[in-house]
Amino acid sequence: MTDPHSFLDAPEGTREEIMRATYLALCEHGYAGLTIDRIGEEFPKSKSLVYHHYEGKDDLLLDFLDFVVDRFEAEVPLEDADGPRERLDAVLDHVLATPLPQGRREYLSAMVELRAQAAHDEAYREQFTRHDRFFTDRLVHLIERGIEAGDFREVDAEGVAAGLVATFNGAMTMRVTTAEDPVPTLRPALEAALHEYLLTPGASRGQAR
Amino acid sequence: MTDPHSFLDAPEGTREEIMRATYLALCEHGYAGLTIDRIGEEFPKSKSLVYHHYEGKDDLLLDFLDFVVDRFEAEVPLEDADGPRERLDAVLDHVLATPLPQGRREYLSAMVELRAQAAHDEAYREQFTRHDRFFTDRLVHLIERGIEAGDFREVDAEGVAAGLVATFNGAMTMRVTTAEDPVPTLRPALEAALHEYLLTPGASRGQAR
Repeated sequence: MTDPHSFLDAPEGTREEIMRATYLALCEHGYAGLTIDRIGEEFPKSKSLVYHHYEGKDDLLLDFLDFVVDRFEAEVPLEDADGPRERLDAVLDHVLATPLPQGRREYLSAMVELRAQAAHDEAYREQFTRHDRFFTDRLVHLIERGIEAGDFREVDAEGVAAGLVATFNGAMTMRVTTAEDPVPTLRPALEAALHEYLLTPGASRGQAR
Repeated sequence: MTDPHSFLDAPEGTREEIMRATYLALCEHGYAGLTIDRIGEEFPKSKSLVYHHYEGKDDLLLDFLDFVVDRFEAEVPLEDADGPRERLDAVLDHVLATPLPQGRREYLSAMVELRAQAAHDEAYREQFTRHDRFFTDRLVHLIERGIEAGDFREVDAEGVAAGLVATFNGAMTMRVTTAEDPVPTLRPALEAALHEYLLTPGASRGQAR
């Protein structure tokens, strides 16, 4: 998942303030150490407001995931000025940014822990299905536009998009669960293979290698 | 991680019996629901033996991960009769088997939960570093042999291997944390891109597309 940073600086209304408090408490304490009380400590208003809105930690975290996916949907533009190739490079730049941007390690760690809940909890699984589906659909759209524009070859857009989302999910997980960051190693090879497979022959392809 | 299946049928000695019991209890109860007591229930000898050998659940699980990685190392052959390309296809066949082989969903779910511990626990992180490092090294070796044999182009073996391990980790995680299995969608595209990028031009390449 990308970082839901903008609401952190200027939360609007009680829900965004609760979401901000959840985000901060999750990054600080992780899933296991998280309690509604600790979320309340990051909340500028009365803690009782948090208890009023949510039945418990998982209820709040599921709403948090919902909020994150909604923001993700709102933040990824459907249309843009740049071409499909520049757009794809921008996705790689964002998702595989090296070194990890400030605060992202804590956020990714929290997301890895939340995703692990989805291994045995249907409600969490629904949220991560929605997230991965959304991310895949955006990439499908991007690849299809590249094919239409003649920049990309006629590949199976759904398959390439699903492969990219798996690679991104795996890389982001490995960054926070192993002592070695695989991204600086894998990124040049991923880009080279992607350009080789995706780009139509011509000037831009030669440039990409 | 691959499935450590063979010790399940014929465990040898007390440690393998404990590992077998851990595996079964982990698949049944998940990380959160796991207790030494529940592991003891799957153990054919006295429960006190398990308590004698391990200080607690995490101590036992870390030894289990150590055991799994050791087995993984022992099971993946360094040299083999097939060529590098057939060997790579065999890795894909195993890791991305569709549908999920019997029992693998439970095993992958447990591994996703154990990996999530690595987001905040150094000892778990060490085990997953060792696992990913080992898997990457095996693939590097395989790719380098393919380059030497003239079957593969002169790619960055370390980069391609790291990208594959990330893709495998992401795909295996998504299979058990989302309602949609991405593997049937992504696998043909991954194979096509990999063959396009990796295989040297010639008969075998044309055959692969």
